[in-house]
Amino acid sequence: MVEEARRRRLESGDGPDRVTTPAGGYNGVMTSTTETPETASYRAPSVDVTALRRLLDGRYAEVRDLVRGNLAEHASVLDEAETMSRPEFRERVKDLLVLMADSGQTGMGFPQEYGGGGDLGASIAAFETLAYGDLSLLVKVGVQFGLFGGAILMLGSKRHHDAYLEDLIAGRLLGCFAMTESGHGSNVQALDTVATYDGSTDEFVITTTDDDARKDYIGNAAQHAEAAVVFAQLEVDGERHGVHAFVVPMRRSGALLAGIRVEDDGLKMGLNGVDNGRIWFDRVRIPRDNLLNRFADVTDDGRYVSPIDNPDRRFFTMLGTLVQGRVCVSGAGINAAKVALTLAVRYAVRRRQFNATSPNEEEVLLDYGLHQRRLFPLLAENYALHFAQEALALKTHDVFSVASAEDEDEQARRELESRAAGTKALGTWHATRTIQECREACGGAGYLAVSRFAALKADTDVFTTFEGDNHVLLQLVAKGLLTDYASDFEDLDQLGMVRFVAGMALETVIERTAAHKLLEAIKDVLPGGDDRWDQEAGLRDPNYQLAMLRFREEHTLSGVARRLKRGIDAGLNPGEVFSRAQDHVIAAARAHVERLVLEAFVAKTAALPDGDLRVALTLLCDLHALTTIERDRAWFMEHGRLTSPRSKAITREVNELCLRIRPFAVDLVDAYGVPPELLRSPDLLGSVPG
Amino acid sequence: MVEEARRRRLESGDGPDRVTTPAGGYNGVMTSTTETPETASYRAPSVDVTALRRLLDGRYAEVRDLVRGNLAEHASVLDEAETMSRPEFRERVKDLLVLMADSGQTGMGFPQEYGGGGDLGASIAAFETLAYGDLSLLVKVGVQFGLFGGAILMLGSKRHHDAYLEDLIAGRLLGCFAMTESGHGSNVQALDTVATYDGSTDEFVITTTDDDARKDYIGNAAQHAEAAVVFAQLEVDGERHGVHAFVVPMRRSGALLAGIRVEDDGLKMGLNGVDNGRIWFDRVRIPRDNLLNRFADVTDDGRYVSPIDNPDRRFFTMLGTLVQGRVCVSGAGINAAKVALTLAVRYAVRRRQFNATSPNEEEVLLDYGLHQRRLFPLLAENYALHFAQEALALKTHDVFSVASAEDEDEQARRELESRAAGTKALGTWHATRTIQECREACGGAGYLAVSRFAALKADTDVFTTFEGDNHVLLQLVAKGLLTDYASDFEDLDQLGMVRFVAGMALETVIERTAAHKLLEAIKDVLPGGDDRWDQEAGLRDPNYQLAMLRFREEHTLSGVARRLKRGIDAGLNPGEVFSRAQDHVIAAARAHVERLVLEAFVAKTAALPDGDLRVALTLLCDLHALTTIERDRAWFMEHGRLTSPRSKAITREVNELCLRIRPFAVDLVDAYGVPPELLRSPDLLGSVPG
Repeated sequence: MVEEARRRRLESGDGPDRVTTPAGGYNGVMTSTTETPETASYRAPSVDVTALRRLLDGRYAEVRDLVRGNLAEHASVLDEAETMSRPEFRERVKDLLVLMADSGQTGMGFPQEYGGGGDLGASIAAFETLAYGDLSLLVKVGVQFGLFGGAILMLGSKRHHDAYLEDLIAGRLLGCFAMTESGHGSNVQALDTVATYDGSTDEFVITTTDDDARKDYIGNAAQHAEAAVVFAQLEVDGERHGVHAFVVPMRRSGALLAGIRVEDDGLKMGLNGVDNGRIWFDRVRIPRDNLLNRFADVTDDGRYVSPIDNPDRRFFTMLGTLVQGRVCVSGAGINAAKVALTLAVRYAVRRRQFNATSPNEEEVLLDYGLHQRRLFPLLAENYALHFAQEALALKTHDVFSVASAEDEDEQARRELESRAAGTKALGTWHATRTIQECREACGGAGYLAVSRFAALKADTDVFTTFEGDNHVLLQLVAKGLLTDYASDFEDLDQLGMVRFVAGMALETVIERTAAHKLLEAIKDVLPGGDDRWDQEAGLRDPNYQLAMLRFREEHTLSGVARRLKRGIDAGLNPGEVFSRAQDHVIAAARAHVERLVLEAFVAKTAALPDGDLRVALTLLCDLHALTTIERDRAWFMEHGRLTSPRSKAITREVNELCLRIRPFAVDLVDAYGVPPELLRSPDLLGSVPG
Repeated sequence: MVEEARRRRLESGDGPDRVTTPAGGYNGVMTSTTETPETASYRAPSVDVTALRRLLDGRYAEVRDLVRGNLAEHASVLDEAETMSRPEFRERVKDLLVLMADSGQTGMGFPQEYGGGGDLGASIAAFETLAYGDLSLLVKVGVQFGLFGGAILMLGSKRHHDAYLEDLIAGRLLGCFAMTESGHGSNVQALDTVATYDGSTDEFVITTTDDDARKDYIGNAAQHAEAAVVFAQLEVDGERHGVHAFVVPMRRSGALLAGIRVEDDGLKMGLNGVDNGRIWFDRVRIPRDNLLNRFADVTDDGRYVSPIDNPDRRFFTMLGTLVQGRVCVSGAGINAAKVALTLAVRYAVRRRQFNATSPNEEEVLLDYGLHQRRLFPLLAENYALHFAQEALALKTHDVFSVASAEDEDEQARRELESRAAGTKALGTWHATRTIQECREACGGAGYLAVSRFAALKADTDVFTTFEGDNHVLLQLVAKGLLTDYASDFEDLDQLGMVRFVAGMALETVIERTAAHKLLEAIKDVLPGGDDRWDQEAGLRDPNYQLAMLRFREEHTLSGVARRLKRGIDAGLNPGEVFSRAQDHVIAAARAHVERLVLEAFVAKTAALPDGDLRVALTLLCDLHALTTIERDRAWFMEHGRLTSPRSKAITREVNELCLRIRPFAVDLVDAYGVPPELLRSPDLLGSVPG
């Protein structure tokens, strides 16, 4: 049964088992040697931008348009971020947050009985779209409604919902999410803040034990939060029960309450419209009722009780309910990158430099092969991630909205957490890389603040390390994959995981080497059988592309497991073995997530009706698949799945695809639907749009 | 003879022909399989930080210490960049520039008779070191003394030196360098501003022909420049003679002169202490004498004369004298990256997170294999680039300071320009990547402005595209390599270059395929002869490492040439052929520059006396060489120079080297000698240093 779950995840995922090659248009040649795009039969697809935008906007097109409208109406915030003082701008962002709350866009994920929209998927869509605008506003919205509101909704019970939700949804009660400490960010289980139950007064006493235990980088803490959800070690009668969450009042009418000290984190690289700060608690007393008690409680007679016995499992279950935070950051990163791509592609069809093909007229940047090579793979990756994010968001919605059996539920939640962690890591790194490349592709004009790259770069920079450091998240993904064989994996910390893998699971892993099951599964759909499927399939056959990524995933994963086992069998310190294999662990996780991302894109493309749109997106999907393989072609050669000539053929095919995509590249960015009011950039676009 | 020059460049470069393996310490095993570093015989080298710093500081240790002292004394500018308004901060940076000028550090490259130091190398060393501090100050210094002052020194004659140098060296006359226009950045030859000679008044009339011809992004233009060196198309009697430079007075007592309009470029991503702006000239009249006339003049009777007949050659000769600008930016990028590496490595030995090897204590970040993998290759690359930059700076000094025969001189200048272009491209991309990775490795604490990453990222971002866009620079390098066979290559614009290659040079190139000459040259030093040198040499043999990079360079370059020829022979548009091969062209240039960089590091290491310092730097040099090969191992496999097992062995060796370097990693960054006053970052370093 466990094996079955694993098979499901590894071999079918959410993607299609067998994809038919799209009809019509250009069919890739396997080893093209031509240097020009024009072949007699080729016609560039004509892209219907409106239809493509509808496809991208998906189920929540109306929600996205509501947010687009709100952003366009308040586009002046992009100027204000540059002209206002920091205190003024913080107030401005707070006021905008309340305005957005009034429009309903920020409360969509909360129950309707408290004034919410009762649709988690809508709430994610709204948040993602907010990333087209000023990102301080986005992050403040995330802190207030996602983290603070989300914790009360997911970790609290009816008494907390009744007490807080209506006010916080309306923006009347602002709060913060006090988890991270100066000494502990990634390792949340090791937080030092203590909440001691005092039976004599029926209260908890919250204490910051030392300066390393101060809460740090907490958004909304420096100025606006009137309450905090504080994560602390719960102690009852001298016994520790692990990290739990408590509602702690912080301010009344703007003044800090007794026992609470706050320090401003000061100027940051970006997001300066958010008031991040540090908090110290000096024996702050709160009523017992303020424990968010969905998963654990202290009874009237002062006993600790929880339906989940195992403390590690309890902890990870609590954290798991907050997964939307990661889903939202992932989507925000992907959408912020769209703004950068829109600017860079539109600039590149306007800007001319150097006489290349004609002595009389300089060449448009986007007609240079190198410029296409710089931008199009990122554009294709953005589309791939967009569809992977869409699948992730829908799954998030379903897991938290649709009732199902408890077992299924747990399996689904685990898969969701892994997928959220992986997509967040790849999506935010994609944002950093894409914004950087787009800025460079816009030269000096891109360096002016009015061109938006300054804020895009500075504001998104922290996305790769907040809501889970990306490297830690990929280790989480790998941990899930490695321990899929047993049901009690939640108990394992990093050290435990290694020991566990060493002791129990490796026989199973090793049995599965050589990816023979995978090969069985793909034998039917690719020519050449077991031995030659990788030689004889067409490069642009999605079954081939997926088979390559599945092979890599399976092989890397079993390789890591064997390596860990070998080291531990040799009597080495398991932690040391793990540390040495860490790059391999990360590679396995990345291979897994990249496979999921490609599957999402292939599935989306395959589901389209025949026609130009499908032809265009198939070209883009092929570009994404082949650049993914090309980037790791050394690995495929090392593992006998790519010959030298075929590897070079992939590089040629990528260049060929860039040429094919050139005619509709502008349509691809226009379909993002970034409101013109938000683009600014007169020097890039030739005029002030809007 | 041409062939001889090419051989010299390709096969010997500045690097050693035969390197002996260092004595003492750890000798790398070819295919290590151990997972732990301790072998019975191994002793980690003990690094003498003072000696290493002396090695890094090199010939100009005193100059560097002078600048370090000045920066430490005025370290408050790092705070002021964050607290002052933009106008205030611009004034502050201007004042600091004058203070630095008073100390003598900014005038070292100018002749002593005007108050300079008469030592170009010292001036480069001073500028590089300035990159440890606030980068607005660095760039303003670069604009004033490097660009404005450099143009007057290198393009002007004695009358201009007498008129301006003393004042500009002292900071009494501030100027700007008005080359770039809104419509033309990289393609300087196509500038639109016109300087028409009016014989009736013996004046030039400077005119901005349209808005695309306005000068743009010009540092010092918005507020402080009283004069500009303006680049414009020189027209005499209706005939155009190409781009020339003119001194144009701009302001008197801060007020703009008639006919000159200026607009502030506004807020930028970074460098906001520099007043960049746009300039329009409305028939501004200047005396004939204001033409910087070293390479061309207009005579008393109104005739255009130049010792260089060919206009393209004249233009490139003029530009070539300004090469120091690139050399300086290259060094600045490499040194800014040192600040980031210092912070990230020092943080990583303090910060603990997760229990890995012990259940009782969390692990220091730098003991994780992944963290080493993230930081050490960048650290090694920084050292490699440091030594390549040192070689470049010394060559710059020699070319401009030591008299030699005209032929030799021209050859040396050409080589210098290529090396400056290539090192600038790799050095500034290194800076962008390193600063980003170091920020991520410092998590949330790295996001606070006090941690310096905010300014480092924002300020250095434009380094990759100013003073020559990096991609354009690498094409310049490739162009030099491809046309080394003929002496008149300076005449060739991008289009011409392609035609030239097609028409004349390819026979020679093709003859040189298969790198047989290279193999001859390395046959003596590596085992196995022609066929098996790449299989039998030790991975840590520098001769092997260099042979790999030389093979790649030779092979890539001849491949590009053949590809261009094939396309043109087939009757395709040469520009289109070039555009399609552009990624290949860039790869060839990069292969060339990476070879030069490794040669510099190997030569430096090989020249050290036996001892721990040599052992330590040899480990670092090996890490750099092997990560360079590893990054491009797909290419080596595709071209038959790396087997799968050997490719995997390189990856293992890289991990092994990371472990070996771990014990002295902090020494490596301490030897940079970044003054503690400049580090700030209390949250990263545990206290406010200094």
